Amino acid sequence: MASQARIEPVGIGMLGLGVVGSAVARTIVERHGEQDPAASLSIKSALVRDLERKRPVELGPSIVTLDPKSVIANPEVGIVIELMGGENPAFDYISSALRAGKHVVTANKEVMCKRGAELLSIAAENDVQLLYEASVGGGIPIIGPLVNDLTANKIQGVRAIINGTTNFILTKMAHEGADFNDVLSEAQSLGYAETDPTADVDGFDALYKISVLARLAFHTEVPIEAIYREGIREVHAKDFRYASELGFTIKLLAVAQINKDLGLLARVHPALIPIDVPMATVNGVLNAVEIEGDLVGSLWFQGPGAGPNPTASAVMGDVLRIVNYWGAPIARRVEQPQLALAQMDDHVCQYYIRLTAADEPGVLAKIASVLGDAEISINSVLQKDTDAERRQADLVIMTHPAIEASIQQAVSSIKKIETVVRLDSLLRVETYAS
Amino acid sequence: MASQARIEPVGIGMLGLGVVGSAVARTIVERHGEQDPAASLSIKSALVRDLERKRPVELGPSIVTLDPKSVIANPEVGIVIELMGGENPAFDYISSALRAGKHVVTANKEVMCKRGAELLSIAAENDVQLLYEASVGGGIPIIGPLVNDLTANKIQGVRAIINGTTNFILTKMAHEGADFNDVLSEAQSLGYAETDPTADVDGFDALYKISVLARLAFHTEVPIEAIYREGIREVHAKDFRYASELGFTIKLLAVAQINKDLGLLARVHPALIPIDVPMATVNGVLNAVEIEGDLVGSLWFQGPGAGPNPTASAVMGDVLRIVNYWGAPIARRVEQPQLALAQMDDHVCQYYIRLTAADEPGVLAKIASVLGDAEISINSVLQKDTDAERRQADLVIMTHPAIEASIQQAVSSIKKIETVVRLDSLLRVETYAS
Repeated sequence: MASQARIEPVGIGMLGLGVVGSAVARTIVERHGEQDPAASLSIKSALVRDLERKRPVELGPSIVTLDPKSVIANPEVGIVIELMGGENPAFDYISSALRAGKHVVTANKEVMCKRGAELLSIAAENDVQLLYEASVGGGIPIIGPLVNDLTANKIQGVRAIINGTTNFILTKMAHEGADFNDVLSEAQSLGYAETDPTADVDGFDALYKISVLARLAFHTEVPIEAIYREGIREVHAKDFRYASELGFTIKLLAVAQINKDLGLLARVHPALIPIDVPMATVNGVLNAVEIEGDLVGSLWFQGPGAGPNPTASAVMGDVLRIVNYWGAPIARRVEQPQLALAQMDDHVCQYYIRLTAADEPGVLAKIASVLGDAEISINSVLQKDTDAERRQADLVIMTHPAIEASIQQAVSSIKKIETVVRLDSLLRVETYAS
Repeated sequence: MASQARIEPVGIGMLGLGVVGSAVARTIVERHGEQDPAASLSIKSALVRDLERKRPVELGPSIVTLDPKSVIANPEVGIVIELMGGENPAFDYISSALRAGKHVVTANKEVMCKRGAELLSIAAENDVQLLYEASVGGGIPIIGPLVNDLTANKIQGVRAIINGTTNFILTKMAHEGADFNDVLSEAQSLGYAETDPTADVDGFDALYKISVLARLAFHTEVPIEAIYREGIREVHAKDFRYASELGFTIKLLAVAQINKDLGLLARVHPALIPIDVPMATVNGVLNAVEIEGDLVGSLWFQGPGAGPNPTASAVMGDVLRIVNYWGAPIARRVEQPQLALAQMDDHVCQYYIRLTAADEPGVLAKIASVLGDAEISINSVLQKDTDAERRQADLVIMTHPAIEASIQQAVSSIKKIETVVRLDSLLRVETYAS
């Protein structure tokens, strides 16, 4: 492909023509027709699941097809745009297209997380491009900057809010004091959350994305199993209230950071973040990514993390990049040493512990003693919402920085204290350089 | 050059070896020596002003030179890095280097503003690259995203805080209630402001940068004379106090926006911005750029806008891009229609007017009458700091949106009212979509 002359218009094959696919198709049809002097594109074939369905953009009966081969193996197609999502059959289709000498643009974070290394190798072997800006952060240019603009840096960390659904839910919970299940229902009725919300609320979507970013930022494959993952189902309205009293809000963070002694740790979990850092103001379905480079320092990218048009912006950015560099040799991929992977057990941060405990003397002493034995110091304690009838109260303990393994061990001992009714929440506090 | 094979190491010529130049040179020497498998670089020649001066990086007596030709015309040099700044002689050196078939990377906003179109044409004619990421926003990738990632969008607006010196001064004034001259002296002693601060505090630096961004975002040359420019010397401590009471802070903004009826307007001036927009939290020497694209919506980029290492990050990003695409054809530049330019006189926004007026009945009525005659409605009025002895008070008037030309006319009439002692401040309020 590399030396192939560009024949105008460049033929486009589409895999998937849903909401995002239709936005992409409309952009192609309306902006990059024969008259576009910069990049003339023509959709040659589009795989759909239902030939009869009405779509916002009319492609004609000879274009839409139920047969993936008529997209992938179509000699008129130079660039395949994959917008189906999921690992399979997307992996098969993308790899076949690359092997057939087609450039591929995808918005599929799951396949790029699980099979990305393999797909990028196949692309390199076949001298074609595989671009995936839309797979992370929607319309925010984040893969482009990592691949092209920040290459002089040794990246130290990537910290992001990259799941719009959970950020919408957490923002609502923070502002309205509402509970998770109520806000989830509302998000579902607004179309911000799926009927089965697992991928979002349990942190899988954020995990796929931080894995993709970690590969680029650190030249290191972080297997899914090595990424710590915790969703937001266990965050309660009360936690926002107490966090706020302590000067924090709660966000689902996806983080990949280098600890110079331990290696690279990737983690997805809800975290308390100080209300005065920029990330605390990333509300609703917005996404934000913070990149720490050794030369550049801290950079901040924010924008719409989803939606048909922002995603089309990223997809078409990739398509136009391929068209603009048509015939250019693909930049060499230089193998770089993989970083060692750190364990979540070694992670160090402050912890927020919320307990329901008997409202009687000596309870805090027992808890403090368990924490002390594990060499965990207490930063502050709040006693709240005393229930005189049940003789119970909420106990909110903020620790000084401690090791995850020690906290987990201490917490399991605390649960066994007779006067501790239950552990309600255990949340990490994200560390920001002061 | 395009078809020339890459000979490793790629020879680098440097024009300027000051603080930024030394940071770039150190990065090259320490990271991209013979052993770097990705990009092996070698500094062949470096133009300096003083051969004897000690520098943080030692390049050897055969490398440093007082003769620009030994950089520009050096057959061993493939990429020239220009870090001298200013229009001349930088323009001559850059154009000579491009004509000699060298790729050029520059951090020079002034020459890219004033002579950028010419230089880009010379680069295209000679089939070499001219890259300038470091010229705007220091280490923030902003030119890369506009050129590579956001190409599918029609950009509607670019709004930025892109001068660190003035942002440092205004932040100090806002937080400490200090006056401009005191903070300027402090900034000068800290090295954040030049001995002659004109380029920064009078808005020239921001003007150069917004002109460079406007060229990229709108494919339109905006001549310097067509850009409205106003610096921060006339912003007073009092204005921060009153702005804060009204829910605003004050920043030096550089803006280029399309008004669909009037065309493209570029302007640099201090502006009141609501305290709850992200730009209000961009403090100190940070820079931030907001880009509004028709597909992607609003994007936000923030980071260190200056400093040797952030600038080196951007410069080296460009150098490595050239090395990675060595031998590739330069992407075609497609001529696009220039947008019409709007006039500042037609700009519409709310205005903040601060007057010293006699503290007697009827003053406000007279002012309101002048504004009414100009069809300008008043949104709110504050009367402050009454001086009983002089029988004077501060009058702060916030208008509803009005046309610049009408405001200017009204203000000149207000100045003539006998009971108006003086006009202290006239500031624009930046409009944010609600």
